[in-house]
Amino acid sequence: MTPPTSASKEKTPTRGYSATKAQLGTRLSRIEGQVRGIRRMVEDERYCIDVITQISAVQAALDKVALGLLDDHARHCVIGGKEEEQAERTTELMSAVGRLMRRS
Amino acid sequence: MTPPTSASKEKTPTRGYSATKAQLGTRLSRIEGQVRGIRRMVEDERYCIDVITQISAVQAALDKVALGLLDDHARHCVIGGKEEEQAERTTELMSAVGRLMRRS
Amino acid sequence: MTPPTSASKEKTPTRGYSATKAQLGTRLSRIEGQVRGIRRMVEDERYCIDVITQISAVQAALDKVALGLLDDHARHCVIGGKEEEQAERTTELMSAVGRLMRRS
Amino acid sequence: MTPPTSASKEKTPTRGYSATKAQLGTRLSRIEGQVRGIRRMVEDERYCIDVITQISAVQAALDKVALGLLDDHARHCVIGGKEEEQAERTTELMSAVGRLMRRS
Repeated sequence: MTPPTSASKEKTPTRGYSATKAQLGTRLSRIEGQVRGIRRMVEDERYCIDVITQISAVQAALDKVALGLLDDHARHCVIGGKEEEQAERTTELMSAVGRLMRRS
Repeated sequence: MTPPTSASKEKTPTRGYSATKAQLGTRLSRIEGQVRGIRRMVEDERYCIDVITQISAVQAALDKVALGLLDDHARHCVIGGKEEEQAERTTELMSAVGRLMRRS
Repeated sequence: MTPPTSASKEKTPTRGYSATKAQLGTRLSRIEGQVRGIRRMVEDERYCIDVITQISAVQAALDKVALGLLDDHARHCVIGGKEEEQAERTTELMSAVGRLMRRS
Repeated sequence: MTPPTSASKEKTPTRGYSATKAQLGTRLSRIEGQVRGIRRMVEDERYCIDVITQISAVQAALDKVALGLLDDHARHCVIGGKEEEQAERTTELMSAVGRLMRRS
């Protein structure tokens, strides 16, 4: 269904990040739990600074997930992509980097 | 000395953000839902760039919550705090800003 | 010459950061030199990644200067400011934080 | 295999950004001037918030330069690189992105 974009087509039929799909799912579940924890901190009227510290921790975790996805994208979808798609996919990659840097 | 600028002065003498507690809770619930949505995108093997775009949206939403909390903290806990606590609370505030800027 | 950093001393005639004005000047001169160095790296066609690494170093140095100025501002101009100015100055402070977080 | 997209192909086979070297130099000279302006603002004891605003402007300009260099690096040195170098260069690229996101 999802067409392969990888360099070595036979083994990785899906998206680049599928290799660590389970890991990614686990990490995102944990982040979801952290956000739920922050909501409870607010309900319990915990000290603002402690809430903000937890928000920073969630952001660090999300940045890590995003960096991992970017890396996979670069390796599988850009380098491993068809030659005629590489330019466009690099443009997409750079826009994504710009957004993560909060610059677009 | 400096009066609190809170919406409901009588009841919530301590935590700055309690005035908008319900709003904050709603925003954090929405963010939790967004993270859940990202997890499902990964499960469904959606295009990496689209997943990253959603992560950027969550980061923006979290930054907004954090900025709101910082603002409340500055007004209530720092300016509105006891004089002998102001220096320490400013230090805390600045550490929190540093963490949000990813600099500590 | 170096004004007091306390909450409300009598005069605080200058800007909050004047205490470390010389230091700030030195740091900014160094940053200027770093940017000049980056320009030369580009002229010499140095490896892109090395140029980017230097840009990150300059960003870190600028963040540090900005955090120092924010801290001084909070202590002198906000906490140490006249009561009727504190609200507005906190708004300014938070806008500045938002810009440093690339969020406004 | 993947042809270089450089403006002047003959002379600069290696560095991706050489096509816009003059432009980059101009932008970096302007940034240098902006940093010098910030130093003068500090000397003249200008309002802290205005100094911070200028720092944010310099950071935005530096991020733009860095994003341009990253883009060139991706196109020339990674996609356009030798197959055996692509993996390592992608690793370098991602480390650079992490540093620009202030995450490594």
